Parts: sequence; C-alpha cells; structure tokens
Amino acid sequence: MARTRKTADPVFDEFGIIERYFAPLTAAAPGAFALTDDAAVMAVEEGHRLVVTSDALVSGVHFTPQAPPDTVAAKALRVNLSDLAAMGARPLGYTLAAALPRDVTPSWLEAFSRSLAADQKSFGIVLIGGDTVVTPGPMTLTICALGLVPEGRELRRSGARPGDRVYVSGTIGDAALGLMAVKGQLPGLGESLDAELRDRYHRPRPRIALGLKLLGIANAAIDISDGLVADLGHVCAASGVAATIDATRIPLSTAAQTVTAADDTFLSAILSGGDDYELLFSAPPTAAAVIDKISADLKLSLTPIGEIGEGEGVRVIDAGGQPISLDHHGYRHFLP
Amino acid sequence: MARTRKTADPVFDEFGIIERYFAPLTAAAPGAFALTDDAAVMAVEEGHRLVVTSDALVSGVHFTPQAPPDTVAAKALRVNLSDLAAMGARPLGYTLAAALPRDVTPSWLEAFSRSLAADQKSFGIVLIGGDTVVTPGPMTLTICALGLVPEGRELRRSGARPGDRVYVSGTIGDAALGLMAVKGQLPGLGESLDAELRDRYHRPRPRIALGLKLLGIANAAIDISDGLVADLGHVCAASGVAATIDATRIPLSTAAQTVTAADDTFLSAILSGGDDYELLFSAPPTAAAVIDKISADLKLSLTPIGEIGEGEGVRVIDAGGQPISLDHHGYRHFLP
Repeated sequence: MARTRKTADPVFDEFGIIERYFAPLTAAAPGAFALTDDAAVMAVEEGHRLVVTSDALVSGVHFTPQAPPDTVAAKALRVNLSDLAAMGARPLGYTLAAALPRDVTPSWLEAFSRSLAADQKSFGIVLIGGDTVVTPGPMTLTICALGLVPEGRELRRSGARPGDRVYVSGTIGDAALGLMAVKGQLPGLGESLDAELRDRYHRPRPRIALGLKLLGIANAAIDISDGLVADLGHVCAASGVAATIDATRIPLSTAAQTVTAADDTFLSAILSGGDDYELLFSAPPTAAAVIDKISADLKLSLTPIGEIGEGEGVRVIDAGGQPISLDHHGYRHFLP
Repeated sequence: MARTRKTADPVFDEFGIIERYFAPLTAAAPGAFALTDDAAVMAVEEGHRLVVTSDALVSGVHFTPQAPPDTVAAKALRVNLSDLAAMGARPLGYTLAAALPRDVTPSWLEAFSRSLAADQKSFGIVLIGGDTVVTPGPMTLTICALGLVPEGRELRRSGARPGDRVYVSGTIGDAALGLMAVKGQLPGLGESLDAELRDRYHRPRPRIALGLKLLGIANAAIDISDGLVADLGHVCAASGVAATIDATRIPLSTAAQTVTAADDTFLSAILSGGDDYELLFSAPPTAAAVIDKISADLKLSLTPIGEIGEGEGVRVIDAGGQPISLDHHGYRHFLP
C-alpha cells in the first residue's frame, strides 16, 4: 500500500500530534471523547440557540511565517470568539482543523497548544474536535466556534434604528497601526508604544463579556474585523439605515494618538484598518446610563462616536463638521 | 492603506465569491442570514444533543489538483457527513472555510457550489456559515458539520461487547482500488469497472440513513476512513475488546472481485485501504433479524464479517482459519 508507511517518531504522525498536543485541550468536555471518536456530542441548554462561526487563518496571509506560535494560536481562536461576542453568545466549544507543514516542530506545537489552553481558561471555551493533516503549503488553521444565546435575543447587524447612538468598545486603529509596526513602517515610535501596537495586532481581545451584557440593550452589533467604516457600513446595509460618525470622537490609544499627532494621514489607517476586534454597536439614547454602567463594570471604555439616521451609507465628519472622503473601505481578499 | 485595494472584477473578491456561490447554498437556513452576519444562529430540538465534526481536505494530499470540482465538493462534504452517520446523527448544517488559490476560476466555483447544492438535497444538510480566504498554497477546504442525535443514544466506538457480530455496510476496498485506478495502477481492468472504482474513491457515500436506523440496535459504530482493519482496531481499543474477522466474508464489489481474482496481493489494499466511508458496527446476535430488515429497507448490504471477543487487537483469518499477517494498518499523515 503506497498510502501506508511506518513511523519513526510516533509524535509526528497525526495520531501522535492529536494525542500529545490537542487531546489534553478537551479535558473539560467529556463529550469530545478525548478526540478518539468520530465526532463530539454536546448538550445545548434548553431555551437557547446555537451560534456557529468559522474563520480560517493562512500563514503568509493572516500571520507571518515567523510569528510566535502563541500569537498564532491566540489569533486563530480569538477572531472566532470575537464573532461569538458580536452575537452576544456565550462560548460553548470549538473545533480546530490544522493543516500543518511537515517541518512543524514539537516546540512550536507545544507553545501553540499552551496558548490555546490559556485562552480556553480566559474565555470559557474548550476544544471539542477537529482534524490534523499535513500540507505541502503554508500552515492553514481553521476554527469553528460554537456558542449559546438565549432564544430570540442574539445581537444582529440588522437591528440598528434611526436615532440610535453608535458606540465602539476600547480603542480603534491599534491593530492596523500594529501591522505597520510589525512591517517596520512606524520607526521612532519608541519601544513601549511599538510593543503595545504589535500586541494589539497579534492578540485580539474578543469582547465576550461585553456581548453578553449587551443582550437586550444594543439594537445591533458587529465586531470590527474589516475596519471601522467598513463594518459600520455592514451594519447600515443590513439595517437599511445611514450613519454619521465624528472622527474626533473615535477613541484612540496613547500609541495611536502619538502616531496621528505626528502625521494625520494615519487617520485613514484608523478609519479603514481591520483586525481591531472591538465591538461596534448601536443603542437608543435611553440606554446611555446602562451602557455607562456596563463600561464601569467591565473596566472597558464604551464610546459614542456618532448616530444612526435615515438613508444609507457611512459619513465621517471632521472637527469642523465637514465630511472626510474615504477611498478605502476595509480589507478584501482576492483583489488584483 | 497597504491592505486595501480596489477590485476589477467584483466576483473575485471574498464578498463577491460568498454572495455569488456560497450565500445561495444557505437558502434553507434562515439563521445563516445569507452569510451576512457574524455567525449563524440555529435551533436545537429539545431532547437532542449536538454532534460536531470537522475534516480538512488539502489539494495534492486529499485530492489531486486536477480533480473535477464536483468530486472535490462531494468529498469535502461527504467525509464529514460520514462522521455524522457513524454517530447516528441527523445532519443539521455545516460551515465551509475555503482557502482558495488566486487562480481559482468562476467555472470551477460554479461546478463546486452546484455539487454542494446537490449533496445538500441528497443528505438533508445546509450551509450555515464559513470563511473565504486567499491562499498562496494549495486549496484547503475545511468543513465543520453539525448534526442532532436523541440524547444519550449516539453511536460510539466504545460500546462493542464480546459476543457481538461485526458488520460492514456496502462493499469494502473499492476506494483504495479506486485510488490505484486514478494513479493508473490497475491497467486492463476495463473501462466500466475502472470508472466504478474511481467513482467510489471520488464520491464517498455517507451512510446517514443507516446510522439513524442503527440507533438502539448497534453497540458500536465507526466509519471506515483509515481502513477496515485500522478502524476496527479503533473500535476494539475504545471498547476494550478484541475482534476476529474472516477475510473470505468481506463483501467485495464486482470490480474488487475481478482485481483480487487476478492477483490476491490486492487483498492487503482491501484490508488496509482507507476512504471507503462505509459503516462498520457491532451488534449482538439477537439483532440479526432487525439488521436484515434494515438492509432490505435501505437496499444496502449489511454483512457480518466476524465477531467481537475478549482481549485486544484485530485478527484476520483466511479461508483455512489461519491468521493473515498485516504489515500495514491504515493511512497516517506525517510519516517520513
């Protein structure tokens, strides 16, 4: 049989890798059967619906081949968690399909799985299944994350209403600037701010706790992955509304303030850059006090940056109330 | 913004591909929101548990780069459906994460998505989400399939008991021989038998209907993906039992009979070859009549090929009752 060969190092076949690095990640999910059965079996709480999302990361596209394995693991899992957060879902479990190049090392896998284990604790999720295969190409990691949301209460992109305020969590643009820092395009920023921006690019902070608290409060929500303006555009399109945001009200980190103070052309990176994985949501003005309370409880800034109106599209205005023209609306694959 | 570019042909960015080829596949799942939201929301029937599986296919590893797109689609979806079948689960929905090379063509995507649409009808499943990204490497397709099983009734690998009969559905070894046919290693077989074997390799036939009927009948089940002996070995290991199967009772297709009649060394391909995606299950002798009835109802042969006993490991005996030695036990990735 051409397809069957003996192994020299038992760790380096799919069964060895699964047993050593991935099966331990299922410890908290008895229904994962330690990855030894054909599929996982999970209970779904009554009165809840299942929330399902899947994101793939390709080496050389979504992370650099040199990226530390712990940051690769963090990004792979957290971009999926961010989608659950945007729906207001509580994490249930995830599958990991890892297409690994033949030269992946035990130490890489060790650091990768240790990072997943840490994130599982932080975000209350557990590995329940997946697949491990060899690829002659770049490492490709696909996670499918499952969550639960009380029936009929999920946060959607389509619920924004004229009169709503538009909020964002945290600070905006750090990941786009972080990617520039990774590429060496922000010289002279200083070590500490540079490291902060890189970390924001490498380690999204999925706003799970915020999503849960916004159930019944927000009318619409999305996670900012394509860029602030692009993602607000998705909300407007899905809701059949328009939005106006005030560039001066966009919350910036100290690092981002430093960068834009030196050169205000970086503002376009902040408006259009992806990968922040903050939540953008809309809520009626009557919810302002509740939202302030949520912000205080979570120790997470929630900043109103604009309003929803009738019409369509996103308008960004500057300090003088003048519209800022935007050539770019976010990141797309497959462009020439 | 380096990351944002204008598009020439709107079909060939991720949004265009999703809208044109993948969103229509979600029509039967309102909770997929036509792939326009952050995640899908699915109801889970009361009294049921969720069954979750994920398999990845890499071009050049799991299918040839020249493979017709309809067979690639069929294989990607059906290997996952086969895992649901092995658990006795009813299909609910699936996500597709497609890492596509930049030169993928509209006609390829058209045939690929048409094949998925046909299989969705055949097997009662629907696309509910996923991701579309570009890869500089080989096409990599990851599907995560969800199913439902009545609580506590799922088929497991671990339930085989001494005294059980070992059954297989359909015929065994065709996919392994089909791979040889694809590689031109079975000259002189004749066009019709050759085409039959290739089709068995390209188009697994997930035994969803059988899995559902085996709930409460079979003590253990697995789908044959690593090979008959290897997968029976997985059942024995999980159940803490041994198995003896009779090589002469293994059901062979006309094509496989023709091949082995000419050269009995092909028997090892039949015992060890993967990718048949038939179900192997064990059931007590008292279930024999019910199993015959299921076979008649489904017009699908269900053949007893051996017995479960005390001990460990799989023994294959020949026509004279002598053990056949097996060097190979199925397909593994990552071997040197």
